[in-house]
Amino acid sequence: MSKIKVAVLGATGMIGQRFVQMLEGHPWFEIEGLYASEKSEGKRLREVLKVRDFEFSDGTLDAQVRAMDVKHISDSARIAFSGLPSDLAGPTETSLAGGGVAVFTNAGSHRMDPCVPIVIPEVNPSQMEAARDQPTYGDGGYIVTNANCSSTGIAVPLHALHKSYGLEQVFVSTYQALSGAGYPGVPSLDAVGNVIPFIDHEEEKMEVELAKILGSYSKAGFEYADFKVMANCARVPVVDGHLESLTIEMRDSPSLDELAKTLSGFRGEAHSLSLPSAPAQPVIVRTEDNRPQPAFDVMAGSPARARGMASTVGRLREGNGYYKMFVLSHNTLRGGAGGSVLNAELAKAKGML
Amino acid sequence: MSKIKVAVLGATGMIGQRFVQMLEGHPWFEIEGLYASEKSEGKRLREVLKVRDFEFSDGTLDAQVRAMDVKHISDSARIAFSGLPSDLAGPTETSLAGGGVAVFTNAGSHRMDPCVPIVIPEVNPSQMEAARDQPTYGDGGYIVTNANCSSTGIAVPLHALHKSYGLEQVFVSTYQALSGAGYPGVPSLDAVGNVIPFIDHEEEKMEVELAKILGSYSKAGFEYADFKVMANCARVPVVDGHLESLTIEMRDSPSLDELAKTLSGFRGEAHSLSLPSAPAQPVIVRTEDNRPQPAFDVMAGSPARARGMASTVGRLREGNGYYKMFVLSHNTLRGGAGGSVLNAELAKAKGML
Amino acid sequence: MSKIKVAVLGATGMIGQRFVQMLEGHPWFEIEGLYASEKSEGKRLREVLKVRDFEFSDGTLDAQVRAMDVKHISDSARIAFSGLPSDLAGPTETSLAGGGVAVFTNAGSHRMDPCVPIVIPEVNPSQMEAARDQPTYGDGGYIVTNANCSSTGIAVPLHALHKSYGLEQVFVSTYQALSGAGYPGVPSLDAVGNVIPFIDHEEEKMEVELAKILGSYSKAGFEYADFKVMANCARVPVVDGHLESLTIEMRDSPSLDELAKTLSGFRGEAHSLSLPSAPAQPVIVRTEDNRPQPAFDVMAGSPARARGMASTVGRLREGNGYYKMFVLSHNTLRGGAGGSVLNAELAKAKGML
Amino acid sequence: MSKIKVAVLGATGMIGQRFVQMLEGHPWFEIEGLYASEKSEGKRLREVLKVRDFEFSDGTLDAQVRAMDVKHISDSARIAFSGLPSDLAGPTETSLAGGGVAVFTNAGSHRMDPCVPIVIPEVNPSQMEAARDQPTYGDGGYIVTNANCSSTGIAVPLHALHKSYGLEQVFVSTYQALSGAGYPGVPSLDAVGNVIPFIDHEEEKMEVELAKILGSYSKAGFEYADFKVMANCARVPVVDGHLESLTIEMRDSPSLDELAKTLSGFRGEAHSLSLPSAPAQPVIVRTEDNRPQPAFDVMAGSPARARGMASTVGRLREGNGYYKMFVLSHNTLRGGAGGSVLNAELAKAKGML
Repeated sequence: MSKIKVAVLGATGMIGQRFVQMLEGHPWFEIEGLYASEKSEGKRLREVLKVRDFEFSDGTLDAQVRAMDVKHISDSARIAFSGLPSDLAGPTETSLAGGGVAVFTNAGSHRMDPCVPIVIPEVNPSQMEAARDQPTYGDGGYIVTNANCSSTGIAVPLHALHKSYGLEQVFVSTYQALSGAGYPGVPSLDAVGNVIPFIDHEEEKMEVELAKILGSYSKAGFEYADFKVMANCARVPVVDGHLESLTIEMRDSPSLDELAKTLSGFRGEAHSLSLPSAPAQPVIVRTEDNRPQPAFDVMAGSPARARGMASTVGRLREGNGYYKMFVLSHNTLRGGAGGSVLNAELAKAKGML
Repeated sequence: MSKIKVAVLGATGMIGQRFVQMLEGHPWFEIEGLYASEKSEGKRLREVLKVRDFEFSDGTLDAQVRAMDVKHISDSARIAFSGLPSDLAGPTETSLAGGGVAVFTNAGSHRMDPCVPIVIPEVNPSQMEAARDQPTYGDGGYIVTNANCSSTGIAVPLHALHKSYGLEQVFVSTYQALSGAGYPGVPSLDAVGNVIPFIDHEEEKMEVELAKILGSYSKAGFEYADFKVMANCARVPVVDGHLESLTIEMRDSPSLDELAKTLSGFRGEAHSLSLPSAPAQPVIVRTEDNRPQPAFDVMAGSPARARGMASTVGRLREGNGYYKMFVLSHNTLRGGAGGSVLNAELAKAKGML
Repeated sequence: MSKIKVAVLGATGMIGQRFVQMLEGHPWFEIEGLYASEKSEGKRLREVLKVRDFEFSDGTLDAQVRAMDVKHISDSARIAFSGLPSDLAGPTETSLAGGGVAVFTNAGSHRMDPCVPIVIPEVNPSQMEAARDQPTYGDGGYIVTNANCSSTGIAVPLHALHKSYGLEQVFVSTYQALSGAGYPGVPSLDAVGNVIPFIDHEEEKMEVELAKILGSYSKAGFEYADFKVMANCARVPVVDGHLESLTIEMRDSPSLDELAKTLSGFRGEAHSLSLPSAPAQPVIVRTEDNRPQPAFDVMAGSPARARGMASTVGRLREGNGYYKMFVLSHNTLRGGAGGSVLNAELAKAKGML
Repeated sequence: MSKIKVAVLGATGMIGQRFVQMLEGHPWFEIEGLYASEKSEGKRLREVLKVRDFEFSDGTLDAQVRAMDVKHISDSARIAFSGLPSDLAGPTETSLAGGGVAVFTNAGSHRMDPCVPIVIPEVNPSQMEAARDQPTYGDGGYIVTNANCSSTGIAVPLHALHKSYGLEQVFVSTYQALSGAGYPGVPSLDAVGNVIPFIDHEEEKMEVELAKILGSYSKAGFEYADFKVMANCARVPVVDGHLESLTIEMRDSPSLDELAKTLSGFRGEAHSLSLPSAPAQPVIVRTEDNRPQPAFDVMAGSPARARGMASTVGRLREGNGYYKMFVLSHNTLRGGAGGSVLNAELAKAKGML
């Protein structure tokens, strides 16, 4: 079976390069070209590497891709994976979808458009159907987005809890990694030995995206889940891995043991469809008293293709009528490029490619 | 007027050295001796300096104190400022109080004892009266504690809000500095580029201390304030300055403008008594979109003697029936040595010394 | 006596803001205006603060200056302190000197021009005479530069050694702070947990500037000192303070004790002229086994106005015919704004203003 | 063929855990037991993990080893890999060798003993013969050490240069990672945003070990290579990877192109013997202007088993009669556990096991 040709847009950025990592040796997809702005044209990928552990996988990386030249204008590819900055992403992705390309994007530009779903295969695979209602779908073109990086990692455990116990209120504070701001992103003079309690529009995104993701889609449009999210977002001097503290009010009152079992036992459609990049266990529960930590748990997930795709939950506690926990996920894999690759795998499994 | 002689216990530790900083040139108090464990005996303070900005104040520091030898056994001093580790603090402080010494301590050992108050002069100066009910008070000996470092910084703004609008629930997540763990404290291999979502007993302390501090004292004992605290505590790679995110439910519904005015206009008894180390404005409200930050605001507070003694509040927001904000305070000054020095000043003003 | 009016160019940058710090309350100079590019026009200084400990000096800072609006075009000032980026510095400074302004600049653009000296008052005050030979001097305009930040800190101790023992070869490796790259400067994703072994043109500058500074000036031009410098430059995740390792071959062979005395006893013309920003002791020698460290020694220097203006030397060793030591200096004070303010003070003392 | 049973001593420490990583799935060796002090007895390896990327290799790690209990007393194993601290290493290793165990150790205790070689298979495989002259060799017991972590990484490129061009003098300054100090090692309060210009005995070790390693062994004893080393050692806030600046005087004067070819073309006996952990290319030369960097190059080396075993050289320059370069190597793999595993492989290939 020949592989589906895919283009990576924004290949010189943090997310673009994570797309390349996720796609190397992929069983269904094959990189047709790397694309970025005019000023990067002709540069080789290995000259513009920004992802620290990209080089670390020397043994397995496809030297051909590493030596691939970055191009400015996309040729014909069936799929475009987009790591474009927001200002470019909007019009470029619309235009590509209009030209019959299936766009799987990390950009937020279209997340609130009609018929554009924010998909997390473990959570809301049925929302993928929204894409079929996009006007360009008949010609093969459509747009599917992955969620904001700070929403994605907690969406999976929150979905497992919502299904079982009914979420009422979620109080979340984030400890977000520097890579979430892209490159060059946060100046080092602001980052070293400091915390920045502000990420532009992040809290607003979290408060609305989570309800959309955990909601449902029908011809009548998206129906949002009915719980409240109160978010406080901050940037910490960590390279990769968003840690988030959650204090949760639920309709039901499971014991902490039940809660842990519900989380670690959760499996979604991504799993039953055997999507290549789906983690065998989407939510890992740690029982040590000081985990999850970015330094130790950011790459959680197996098999090899799904490293960095699991959410790790720890420090389950309860009191005053609330449940508390910390959740960690990889913001540019699970919460970025990996999320969109998994979405494309879901689309393939559903016959949309 | 001759100054009151004071001893600093635990002078080789982070808090002990902050005591020395706060006491140099003090108008009412004079360091009589520096005390630590036997193995530090005879060492000069400047040989065991651990506080980074201690040396930075070269121009003003008293060279005599810097060259002072650390002793093991305390001589007679009217006041003991204690930066002892918990295991030593308990019995040592009890013994000193029994010997007629007024002990102002940063240690947590006695915080929940009967008649031992957790005092923050801006918040609960009247709880200082509890010390008069301690059995050793007649001979001049008693114990007054300052609050846990993560409780102190938010206690001042929370008190201002509670008085004006009635607190119902407080959801707090902390971004705590490394100096809070003392020295050697957190190994660098755990700290660099990482967040540790666990600080032993910190959440429990916050959930109970805040209610005690914002409550009241009578002969019948302490009455706790009636609001709930849900805490998630984490350590971040910052040297000094605890940042905390707050999501608050209150009985009343002030506008954000009113809220800001209430916070920045708040003054307490520390102010009306003109205590030397009391900040002119205990709560500073920043209106920039990305403050407070440890790197910029940790030393907030004026006059010079009160640097690092103010709490800085920023990012006031509301929604879903909650108010949100970030608060920063200096954990080893306001939340440590500075707090106890201020308590001693209050005791002096109240004629208890 | 009325103060001399001075303009600060590049007032929104790291060096510009250090100029403001050094100039506040200055006995001879008074800030007439803050200048930066058009896009900063009208902004208040406190809205664009980038220097971490700027706010820390709340007690003493002149609120008027903090609230001063940034302007685009310079009005008439007798002195311009320039923290401009290199591309702007060249033509702007030439034009100002042509208009009769005495320019004291941190930029490297004119450092190798004929008759433009690189002055360090403790080292080569007589090179200030070169400015008198600039064609615009008659109308009051001239350009004096301070040295590159990594050259300045070691120039003072190297000069003391050269005078006493005759330098032959200097092998230097640098551990340079992030603030040396300005703002936004080094992206945090490159800085956190990393070392970057490259700073554009830094090694070349060090290898030639040090010989010029330790040389002499006559009408015939600059004569360079006759020793070799071999430099390796790297950036480390430190906010302020360049640490440098030195391995030195000298003509004479003093004992380590003599060497230490020569360094700590060194005084220059800056001292005998009682320049306000000159450190009482230009080279501080530490005898601990692990100093100097940026975290503890970067602000070395007294009196208060000279904080951050001393070089700290430590770990004096010898062997194999070489002397070894580490030197630390503040790269944006001693090695930046402070250096130029000291130069202007020297010019004033020499009757050139 | 059955595998050789090996014990890991000091299995709860940084080096011990790197031994486990290097040994998992090893084609010749099999872990028989993990050993540490009494207080660790009975703990499972995964409870005491300190190496950050240990967990990252989830897919490939042997779960059996991860769940292995730490024991206190070593059972019979043919080989002991020692990551013991110096004070324990000396007598423990002597006793094991006396009992017929081949000890491959990272500890420095025996490095200067008669007949105990410091072996780097790419550099001085013939010094392995010294072990045959140890009194316990007849019963199968002997001690072979790997070099100090800061010596090892540069020893390979220096050997390539010495062979081809004759080293005269080597000026080295180090930027050493925190993991080199073990766990808990450097307190975070000393490490964050700081550089510590002192590592106990490190400079002395480098100055003597390099000459021993690049020298030779005969029955008459070790003959040291005849060049001088001048070292300045400092600790930087990097987790793994020692970066070192080198300024080198050589007898010959190759062009930089020749130099680069000599380095990247270098192969040693480790290569011709096809030792499993030997990197295909021991010295990688980077031509970018800002490499090698710990964040990008620390895991250099292929095939998979040799990741972290190559030295990366960059920024080749010449001038003033000296050659300059930066070298990076992984201090706990190439410069620690990996070095000793490679030594054991060499011993096996030479029929000494």
